[in-house]
Amino acid sequence: MRWIYADNREEYDFLDEIKKRAMETSHSTNETVTRIINEVREKGDAAVRSFGLKHDRASPEKFEVSKAELKQAYDEAEESLKKALQHAKDNITAYHIKQLQQGYEIKKDKGVILGQIVRGLSRVGIYVPGGTAAYPSTVLMNAIPARIAGVEEIIMATPPAVEMKEGQKPVCKGNPDILAAAYLAGVDRVFLAGGAQAVAALAFGTESIPSVDKIVGPGNIYVAAAKKLLFGQVDIDMIAGPSEILIIAEEDANPRYIAADLMSQAEHDPMASAILLTTSEKTAKETIQEIDLQKAKLNRKEIIEKSLADFGAVIICRSMEEMVTLANAIAPEHLELMVKDPLNYLPELKNAGSVFCGSYTPEPLGDYLSGTNHVLPTSGTARFASPLGVDSFIKKMSYTLYTKEALGDDRADILTLANKEGLDAHANSIAVRFEVKLERF
Amino acid sequence: MRWIYADNREEYDFLDEIKKRAMETSHSTNETVTRIINEVREKGDAAVRSFGLKHDRASPEKFEVSKAELKQAYDEAEESLKKALQHAKDNITAYHIKQLQQGYEIKKDKGVILGQIVRGLSRVGIYVPGGTAAYPSTVLMNAIPARIAGVEEIIMATPPAVEMKEGQKPVCKGNPDILAAAYLAGVDRVFLAGGAQAVAALAFGTESIPSVDKIVGPGNIYVAAAKKLLFGQVDIDMIAGPSEILIIAEEDANPRYIAADLMSQAEHDPMASAILLTTSEKTAKETIQEIDLQKAKLNRKEIIEKSLADFGAVIICRSMEEMVTLANAIAPEHLELMVKDPLNYLPELKNAGSVFCGSYTPEPLGDYLSGTNHVLPTSGTARFASPLGVDSFIKKMSYTLYTKEALGDDRADILTLANKEGLDAHANSIAVRFEVKLERF
Repeated sequence: MRWIYADNREEYDFLDEIKKRAMETSHSTNETVTRIINEVREKGDAAVRSFGLKHDRASPEKFEVSKAELKQAYDEAEESLKKALQHAKDNITAYHIKQLQQGYEIKKDKGVILGQIVRGLSRVGIYVPGGTAAYPSTVLMNAIPARIAGVEEIIMATPPAVEMKEGQKPVCKGNPDILAAAYLAGVDRVFLAGGAQAVAALAFGTESIPSVDKIVGPGNIYVAAAKKLLFGQVDIDMIAGPSEILIIAEEDANPRYIAADLMSQAEHDPMASAILLTTSEKTAKETIQEIDLQKAKLNRKEIIEKSLADFGAVIICRSMEEMVTLANAIAPEHLELMVKDPLNYLPELKNAGSVFCGSYTPEPLGDYLSGTNHVLPTSGTARFASPLGVDSFIKKMSYTLYTKEALGDDRADILTLANKEGLDAHANSIAVRFEVKLERF
Repeated sequence: MRWIYADNREEYDFLDEIKKRAMETSHSTNETVTRIINEVREKGDAAVRSFGLKHDRASPEKFEVSKAELKQAYDEAEESLKKALQHAKDNITAYHIKQLQQGYEIKKDKGVILGQIVRGLSRVGIYVPGGTAAYPSTVLMNAIPARIAGVEEIIMATPPAVEMKEGQKPVCKGNPDILAAAYLAGVDRVFLAGGAQAVAALAFGTESIPSVDKIVGPGNIYVAAAKKLLFGQVDIDMIAGPSEILIIAEEDANPRYIAADLMSQAEHDPMASAILLTTSEKTAKETIQEIDLQKAKLNRKEIIEKSLADFGAVIICRSMEEMVTLANAIAPEHLELMVKDPLNYLPELKNAGSVFCGSYTPEPLGDYLSGTNHVLPTSGTARFASPLGVDSFIKKMSYTLYTKEALGDDRADILTLANKEGLDAHANSIAVRFEVKLERF
């Protein structure tokens, strides 16, 4: 880990370096993905199948997982998993249900009515990766807010897990934990298709996979590139960058906890970033010792070491104020406040995805169970972006009703502005309703 | 205008054709704009100046318009313009203030606190085109919701209007109507810079132009390309496609009004699309006659003719139900309901930017005065996107506080999920807090 003394220069140089790590998609990735997209648009299921065979070694005969299979996956899951998923679902629901928005209507004089209608999207697609990054928690975090938002149909696409047996046809199945979570979260239809071809299928629709209005969920660089290229055809959530944690710790924070929490993000990805801000050199030193002690026992030791070496840092600050200023400049995905009276600092914190307050609110609690969403803005985008939530699955529509009398009252001002902007067909649409002559410009 | 009898085929073929008109940015535009962006990032003001000289023939010595100049522009505006702008401002404010959102906090047993904070963005940039597309109404539509959202600083960039006088140095000034509207809307700082270079300056900041968190506002293909390329570095609003109007009219709707309203959108752009759905051939025929009559008097006759010829249509439908289905498939930017009891159809309308109900609610009323926003989703994106509003200028942040007791209660379920997902550093961050041994996976 880098060791930096904050001096208004060195720490900002480091931040600039960190920011550059979220690299652009390479030209060749974009070309490959554009080819896949075009082929899926043209050939539908056949293209999804042929890319599936190429990349996953197999593709199911039928993409869709039946409702009975979903239920079976849930029924057959271990009791401990079912209990944990149900607990998470309850907490996620309780947190997100407060995000529901209502439309409004304004009634004015002379019969004027203005309003805004809030609607859930018609159909949403959730992409869920397979392999080692198959996270049932992610299914809940995406599907539950969509359900609360009133989305009519939630579709999920996830790559098949392929079982190869000597002398037999390969068997394609979904990851059972993912299917169980989909069942519990109320996903309507699940398709075993992965990669850029699945994203393209969700965007355009094929013979068996319906097109959706928005695609959400994590994925590898091909999935990310496909989402980016198809944005506009469909809506997408953010393109997630590597995970980040920033911890602000005072002298009396426990270095064991700090070390554990830094590593809980570092283990995600060699590109992840874990940073400690503290006013105490002692805390910083002990945290580094603790990392050495604890990481020895962890499975993902190599990833953690690489991530901490490349994008980890301890920054020794001069005051709480300086730490808050730095946190706002970093705009981290996850921010832990290991300080006394952490809630007192919320008003000063402007830019962060999710804030974890105090010594017993470790970030993994939010990943799984407390109920806040774990899909959060990365790479400094917390300056302008929000956690995934009910908002992500609704849209708004405005409406207006005027009467002849009301329009008559406003007509002069509309004509003034239309004339100013040189748009006389705009002016004409008012003029014809009152049999007045159109002023020439 | 195309004449189509709805038969569930011909009308959809036409819609597919229309959809294709929002073309991709060309490769060469992207290359040009990438060069501009890189140069502005590197050289700051000097690059903004040199591209300004090249494209606008001149660039002001000082980019910023002083507060005194803004006030002067407003003071010197005609009374009729000031009155119309003030009227529009009042209505826009009354409509948008209802969109303000509050955060929430949930208190649970054992000291658990979860919440969501809503904040206005720190700094927003509004791009306002110059020349013939300099619309003071657009300044209000962008700046007022940003102000209501609590944005701390609103920056505007707009190209200088250059006066060339024989033998004298060219004089650069802002468009006085734009400056007056900026003053009234409470824009904090205005810079005379245009094109992709102004967008890049807002994204990265230069010596004189501050960097912003989000860039909104219309612009030509270079501005649009710059916004698209810089998305991620900053947030952007939608990339607006050509304008669209869809009118649903019953037999007794007035063809004069229908004709005028179709042309009010057609005049924007040869790529604009104006479509009439009606169950009455008579209404359709009379509308076409009215268009011929009325357009003769309009300044933008050529644009209107081109737009109606290429992307205009009358579609004769068999029922109101069919018209609503088609409207939802089109997801138009503007939808006029020239029918009896128009409000009754709102529940069935799923996809539209803004709905104008009845014979005395022409679309230009919404462009200027009624108070709804005129920045609306185009090209079918109303399936998932919303009108510009207060939402566009806020972001959310979640927070959590757990106690040791509460975390203890949840610990088993967190460990179950972390184990399932193979993330043992996540499990470790819980384990260290309870001095329990980390289970091996």
